[in-house]
Amino acid sequence: MIIDDLRTELPADRLIEDPDVAASFAGDEAEWAPRGTPVLVVRPRTSAEVQSVVRACIRHGVPLTTRGAGTGLSGGANAIDGGVVLSTELMNDIREINSVERLAVVGPGVVNDDLRAACAEQGLWYPPDPASAPWSTIGGNVATNAGGLCCVKYGVTRDYVLALEVVTGTGELVRLGRRTAKGVAGYDLAGLIVGSEGTLAVVTEVTVKLRPQRAPERTVAGYFSSVVDAGRAVTAIGAAGVVPSALELIDRHCLAAVDAWKNMGLSVDADVVLLGRSDAPGPAGEYEATTMLTCFEQAGATWAAQSENQREADALFEARRLAYPALERLGPVLTEDVCVPKAAVPEMLARIERAAQANDTHIANIAHAGDGNLHPLLITPIGDEAARTRAQAAFEQIIADALDLGGTVTGEHGVGLLKRDGLASELSPEVMTMHRAIKQSLDPHNILNPGKVITLPS
Amino acid sequence: MIIDDLRTELPADRLIEDPDVAASFAGDEAEWAPRGTPVLVVRPRTSAEVQSVVRACIRHGVPLTTRGAGTGLSGGANAIDGGVVLSTELMNDIREINSVERLAVVGPGVVNDDLRAACAEQGLWYPPDPASAPWSTIGGNVATNAGGLCCVKYGVTRDYVLALEVVTGTGELVRLGRRTAKGVAGYDLAGLIVGSEGTLAVVTEVTVKLRPQRAPERTVAGYFSSVVDAGRAVTAIGAAGVVPSALELIDRHCLAAVDAWKNMGLSVDADVVLLGRSDAPGPAGEYEATTMLTCFEQAGATWAAQSENQREADALFEARRLAYPALERLGPVLTEDVCVPKAAVPEMLARIERAAQANDTHIANIAHAGDGNLHPLLITPIGDEAARTRAQAAFEQIIADALDLGGTVTGEHGVGLLKRDGLASELSPEVMTMHRAIKQSLDPHNILNPGKVITLPS
Repeated sequence: MIIDDLRTELPADRLIEDPDVAASFAGDEAEWAPRGTPVLVVRPRTSAEVQSVVRACIRHGVPLTTRGAGTGLSGGANAIDGGVVLSTELMNDIREINSVERLAVVGPGVVNDDLRAACAEQGLWYPPDPASAPWSTIGGNVATNAGGLCCVKYGVTRDYVLALEVVTGTGELVRLGRRTAKGVAGYDLAGLIVGSEGTLAVVTEVTVKLRPQRAPERTVAGYFSSVVDAGRAVTAIGAAGVVPSALELIDRHCLAAVDAWKNMGLSVDADVVLLGRSDAPGPAGEYEATTMLTCFEQAGATWAAQSENQREADALFEARRLAYPALERLGPVLTEDVCVPKAAVPEMLARIERAAQANDTHIANIAHAGDGNLHPLLITPIGDEAARTRAQAAFEQIIADALDLGGTVTGEHGVGLLKRDGLASELSPEVMTMHRAIKQSLDPHNILNPGKVITLPS
Repeated sequence: MIIDDLRTELPADRLIEDPDVAASFAGDEAEWAPRGTPVLVVRPRTSAEVQSVVRACIRHGVPLTTRGAGTGLSGGANAIDGGVVLSTELMNDIREINSVERLAVVGPGVVNDDLRAACAEQGLWYPPDPASAPWSTIGGNVATNAGGLCCVKYGVTRDYVLALEVVTGTGELVRLGRRTAKGVAGYDLAGLIVGSEGTLAVVTEVTVKLRPQRAPERTVAGYFSSVVDAGRAVTAIGAAGVVPSALELIDRHCLAAVDAWKNMGLSVDADVVLLGRSDAPGPAGEYEATTMLTCFEQAGATWAAQSENQREADALFEARRLAYPALERLGPVLTEDVCVPKAAVPEMLARIERAAQANDTHIANIAHAGDGNLHPLLITPIGDEAARTRAQAAFEQIIADALDLGGTVTGEHGVGLLKRDGLASELSPEVMTMHRAIKQSLDPHNILNPGKVITLPS
């Protein structure tokens, strides 16, 4: 039994055998994705311990699912029946922050916001900022290639990963990537591991690029009486050549849910709010803020203004961040993550409204609007099976619409379990075959999170 | 015979069978790398024609080497004896420039500067700017993950590739990547192909991200009496938190060679010149330029000033760009491409001087100094075999020194043929095994540029 091996090889406090405690490690935030029952949860402290776990899984043919904080939204970290769950939570040390090379080296279990805070002390900045940043880990961010609010200007996790230490599917502990600013020595295996959702390797250390800290941001808010008007404002900002440091959309359902929970005095007399930010310094920032304001007004904003008050601006962004947990209080949430070309944002928002109506489903919207990355949140009353069936139909309609508009089924949450069918719709059969070839080449025993992202022929 | 098949399948003007003409397609600019003799050169016009070529190579077991303009510096595009060379030069159409999505779609044979010029007409900018930009193609830039001057601030080719159309090693024509700003649908196969030097797929179309055009640059020049002083200035700029839009080093050997060729009146009374640029708008740009100037002076510059004259500044950068062809006029050039951590730049420059002295080899230096990416250029008199042997020893010493300082054997030129041994020194045997597994999974017939980057066990 694999448990016997690992009891011998790892200190006792690394193992969680109690089924009730283990169950709390069995899933992420994708409430609709099926969870299996693991035989064991392991919490290694070192790369060598991770290697022991992988090697034991290979020997026993046991599937291994790696998880960070479990804030994923696609079921990528959900346990597999009879498998081992590896939690990186104890590998949470910041090993280096180097201001000359502008890089940091961290264990995979370091929380995103903790890294950000440590960098700030040295005048440095780690940009990727998923809404889960107060809880999610760098390792989890690497697994899903997490995006976030500032990614519209600064890119996603992969753009910041310089190097990885990983345990491979053959049980080897290896270093991929580099510490230098540039490097083309061989294939970009570190980049390939990023976003592979634990199916190609187990990440044991992450080296990320940092930026100098940026200028304070200006915030512009606009209220719109329809999501489609707001979508037009987004397209106009792109066409004006402005790259905002954030461009977020929140609809009234989300604002109301956050307000009901946190009593922030947010409810506004508008269907949808757009929040634009500029971190360009000096007059450039003023120009960008003014341009965004003009785009809001010309697209039909019922009210728009540049925020004079940093607390007010922060409250609006905090509401954006809290939208998902606030809605979860109302019932199981099925989260969409489609991303469409910027010009298609108004049409995609209109189609989401139609999908909601056609399937009698309550859909709230948050969006990284400037990226075209939309998060319709499908909410169903607890225990209402008919509503779940209708929501599933709406979910599939939205995926089909996004593909029809030249978009992708997942902008930043990953494929996990929920988007496996969507992935097969998006990619050609030949590209799916390439995926399986890569998977088999790096995980020949098929023990690394099997069944996530892609399925192999049995 | 493969020639008979391709005569049937392709229009006659696509084939070059004359051995003398074909020989002119047999190599890149890496004068020291061995070239084979191809049986045939093909110049397809369409993706379908590329697919025909790949399929013919698979059927006949003939190796296929793809080339752009042949400006590579590692031998990656050198022909293989008995193989086919595929030149992308006729696939040189700019298919789309989209200002709302900020992307361009081009054939692989489009010249870098041509794309840049077409983008500029729409107020857009394609950043990667290798010194070969007036001649090299986007397809070739993708193959090597080319860098350039502005990459210190704006990243390299991979950072701009959104999607690729490629013909795979199994002869399928597929699309990888996306047109959207973000996307995590499956493994990053487009990113994996970038930098793979034609060993994993043949690129038939490239979709690149663009940026809005930037503010005019300020230029700061500094003269130093030693490369080590200049290296200290580079480290100081990094430590000051400034990210220049270029930070280039040129030594007097390069300046003299350019001046002898172009008579630009460049020769300066200094061992080495540093050129810094800032494209930050307004006061931020002034601050960055002033900071660079201070760093130059504190590191011991014998003269330093912000250029008041755009023509003068452009002439210095033109000299940087012409350094390589100017030196080639003096004899065969063996080009190094090591990249070291920024803090190690002074030490690495000192070690290059020692390698030159110890091996009695003439070494000129250009460098993307801000990236730590150094290009010592080893020049040997034509026909002097003893000098070649000494230069080879210096080349290997420099590689060993770069690895010793935590660097990489190739920052932006690629592995090709010249750095295969270096790659094996840099990567662990386990990571080399991963490379071979990836190669075999995507090119199971081993017909795509075999023997470049890595060798497979026979």
